[in-house]
Amino acid sequence: MEEKRLIDYLDQNYQRHLAELMDFIKFKSVSSVEEYRQETLDCASYLLNMMENIGLKSTQLLQTQKFPVVYGEWIRDSSKPTILIYGHYDVQPAEPLEFWDNPPFEPKVQNDCLYARGASDNKGQIFMHLKVIEAYLKTFGQFPVNVKVIIEGEEEIGSPHFHEVLTHYKELLSCDLVFISDTATIGLDQPAICYGLRGILSFELKVHGPSIDLPSGGFYGGNIRNPIHALAEIISSMHRQNGQVNVERFYSGVSQISEEEKQHFERLNFSEQKLIEQTTARELFGESGFSVLERAWTRPTMEVNQIWSGHYGEGHKAIIPSVACANISCRLVPEQDPEKIWEKITTHIHQISTPGVVVEANLIEASKPYCIDYRHPWLESCADALQRYFETPTSFIRAGGSIPVVETLSAVYGVPILLVGFGLPDGNVHGPNEHFSLSHFRKGMKALCYYWFNFDNWRE
Amino acid sequence: MEEKRLIDYLDQNYQRHLAELMDFIKFKSVSSVEEYRQETLDCASYLLNMMENIGLKSTQLLQTQKFPVVYGEWIRDSSKPTILIYGHYDVQPAEPLEFWDNPPFEPKVQNDCLYARGASDNKGQIFMHLKVIEAYLKTFGQFPVNVKVIIEGEEEIGSPHFHEVLTHYKELLSCDLVFISDTATIGLDQPAICYGLRGILSFELKVHGPSIDLPSGGFYGGNIRNPIHALAEIISSMHRQNGQVNVERFYSGVSQISEEEKQHFERLNFSEQKLIEQTTARELFGESGFSVLERAWTRPTMEVNQIWSGHYGEGHKAIIPSVACANISCRLVPEQDPEKIWEKITTHIHQISTPGVVVEANLIEASKPYCIDYRHPWLESCADALQRYFETPTSFIRAGGSIPVVETLSAVYGVPILLVGFGLPDGNVHGPNEHFSLSHFRKGMKALCYYWFNFDNWRE
Repeated sequence: MEEKRLIDYLDQNYQRHLAELMDFIKFKSVSSVEEYRQETLDCASYLLNMMENIGLKSTQLLQTQKFPVVYGEWIRDSSKPTILIYGHYDVQPAEPLEFWDNPPFEPKVQNDCLYARGASDNKGQIFMHLKVIEAYLKTFGQFPVNVKVIIEGEEEIGSPHFHEVLTHYKELLSCDLVFISDTATIGLDQPAICYGLRGILSFELKVHGPSIDLPSGGFYGGNIRNPIHALAEIISSMHRQNGQVNVERFYSGVSQISEEEKQHFERLNFSEQKLIEQTTARELFGESGFSVLERAWTRPTMEVNQIWSGHYGEGHKAIIPSVACANISCRLVPEQDPEKIWEKITTHIHQISTPGVVVEANLIEASKPYCIDYRHPWLESCADALQRYFETPTSFIRAGGSIPVVETLSAVYGVPILLVGFGLPDGNVHGPNEHFSLSHFRKGMKALCYYWFNFDNWRE
Repeated sequence: MEEKRLIDYLDQNYQRHLAELMDFIKFKSVSSVEEYRQETLDCASYLLNMMENIGLKSTQLLQTQKFPVVYGEWIRDSSKPTILIYGHYDVQPAEPLEFWDNPPFEPKVQNDCLYARGASDNKGQIFMHLKVIEAYLKTFGQFPVNVKVIIEGEEEIGSPHFHEVLTHYKELLSCDLVFISDTATIGLDQPAICYGLRGILSFELKVHGPSIDLPSGGFYGGNIRNPIHALAEIISSMHRQNGQVNVERFYSGVSQISEEEKQHFERLNFSEQKLIEQTTARELFGESGFSVLERAWTRPTMEVNQIWSGHYGEGHKAIIPSVACANISCRLVPEQDPEKIWEKITTHIHQISTPGVVVEANLIEASKPYCIDYRHPWLESCADALQRYFETPTSFIRAGGSIPVVETLSAVYGVPILLVGFGLPDGNVHGPNEHFSLSHFRKGMKALCYYWFNFDNWRE
């Protein structure tokens, strides 16, 4: 059996692959922090070199105004389908560092998991694809289809230049399908294909009070409006007691999901209790009338992600601060258009009376949700391969997170997107102690070999 | 005229005095920040040395668990009154540094003002007293009364060990009157005596959500209560739309001031327009039915001084944070007992429904307000001296700020407190670009000479 040779190659090279992955992870490629600019650029060069070594052709950096997209391809034959594999080499900031058991950029293996920032999101997962391509090219000297790989460096800052790259290099990147591993599956050894993602709309609120911080004594306390009070009022006005977003017409057009999809969610047997335990939340809290999965996957939200105002650091200062700020983000579902939602939010904010202060709302990022029919043939053929490898049915799931590029890729190229993640739901992606199951790392690569093997007549 | 010799001494030594003051200010004696611990201790030693040099006796450091109180005295004769001069050598943090035109601990003279953290609060003002004592002792070899000087190093962190020092050294520090220059006057060359201060009660609010920061996507956004939302609701609940504090019975017993005091406030001709301009606030905002001075001096308040939650620093993280915090302080008026107010506040907080999170409220500091009859003879005799030097009537004022030690001193020794400040209302005390008028510095010292000269038969 030919697949066996690929599996053997992966087993024989596992230790080297793991060491390489750790080198890849060590780059502090935090795209949002200026301090790490050079390390992020170095990470792109490292990746370019890796692509050359595994045997990809036309490797190059597609430059943007900030961080380059790393590109490589292996073109077999124009009669074969062309599949574009997307990933990103940038990562979220690791702060707050005090919650990490090990330094976030010094990957550590523990209980067959790899702990580090980026281990799962997305370095570990994109690395699997590269090593599967390596296995094919080193074993057979060829790959079953035409494959193109693009790995960007700005995903964690909202991919501001990605659309530009996609349109500028439209011919180079043209494809029949996009394959992305940047989501989670539902549990260990349980393969899943994701067919829906929420969109994201994030913005900054700034409430400006006096031009400088004033003592809360003096002539000020009692006479000058405190911008924190105004900010708190605006934030409070954003939700109803029942957990719903209180912005007028926020839910316009948002429909209930079909009975079929509902049943299909129920069959996933998601454990609410496990979610409570895993997060050590006291209890769950959300819109009534919806299951946990319905809330996470099919309902829009608004969350304040950050607030800050006043003296920062040690010591308490009895002041009326000059400015109070919040970063807020909404998760959007397919019936919501980010532009219209932004209009509704700004209308809401400016309707609130805030005497003595000036309120400023600035859009940071807006990206559309993505959803595809889970009965799409491209998804089904992948589901079959995963099922064959894992010897268990593949689940069709949605995700609560947002990968803005998914909708962009689908819109620019008019192709379906195949989302197959190997992260686990409790992988602490974006949080402290992010980790990636090495069992999934090993098995996922083998399952991907099965997938590619599916393509008929793959060897000439 | 004998006073003339003191005035001449101060004029002749002005440049040296100014240089010494600048040396005193250069110590980063920020009591609230651990990093500056050694510099704060060094500042105390510097001050001890200064006291010895000007001729004070029994100079010593009264040790506490944190920063020592610096003590010196000049005892003339048990038939004379004993006056205790109080001040503090610690200062507020200088942050945010970006708003300072010059480094805060490198004092700079500009437009006859001295710019630096502590220039006015309280290094500049306590230094004036020391130099007036120096002028007397160097010119006449004696001082008109028994004088004791205590300068503490923990005022800006709520004087946690001061009460202990006052009781432990009760005999050493016994006195007939306490003289403090740690407030502001009402304008340039306008002498004022302060007869009332607001108390302060400060606390920390912590709203605990999930045990670690969670992504606002994943299974979390929509299912897990966001502690920032709960904090915002609690903060919003604290005030009514009309600016009043919304805590039940917060105003219990708080009375209107007398018609006489009201008129006397009106005669101060305080300019609301100037306050707006000076703070660059958009407009004033406060309880209706009260003048600006009534609000600042006679009405209690609650101000959120600081809020923080979520990723701090560059970059936006789309998370549900684990904890959301606020530092809050109330200014209290004489009818309010801090202990009872704290009970009312905690009752209010715990009455608010906050599903899915745990709310923690910790008291940081509580100190009583202070108020004395402005017709008190000790105040009147000082008013006369100031009036004689400045050739303009002395105003009797109250202050919106809090000096917790005032009530402590008055309670422990059962003596009146004379509050004569030389700062200006726009001196940016606690804020960026704190400054002290050098004209007031020079004139204030001379006016103090007049005050001490008032004591009959001061020379033997």
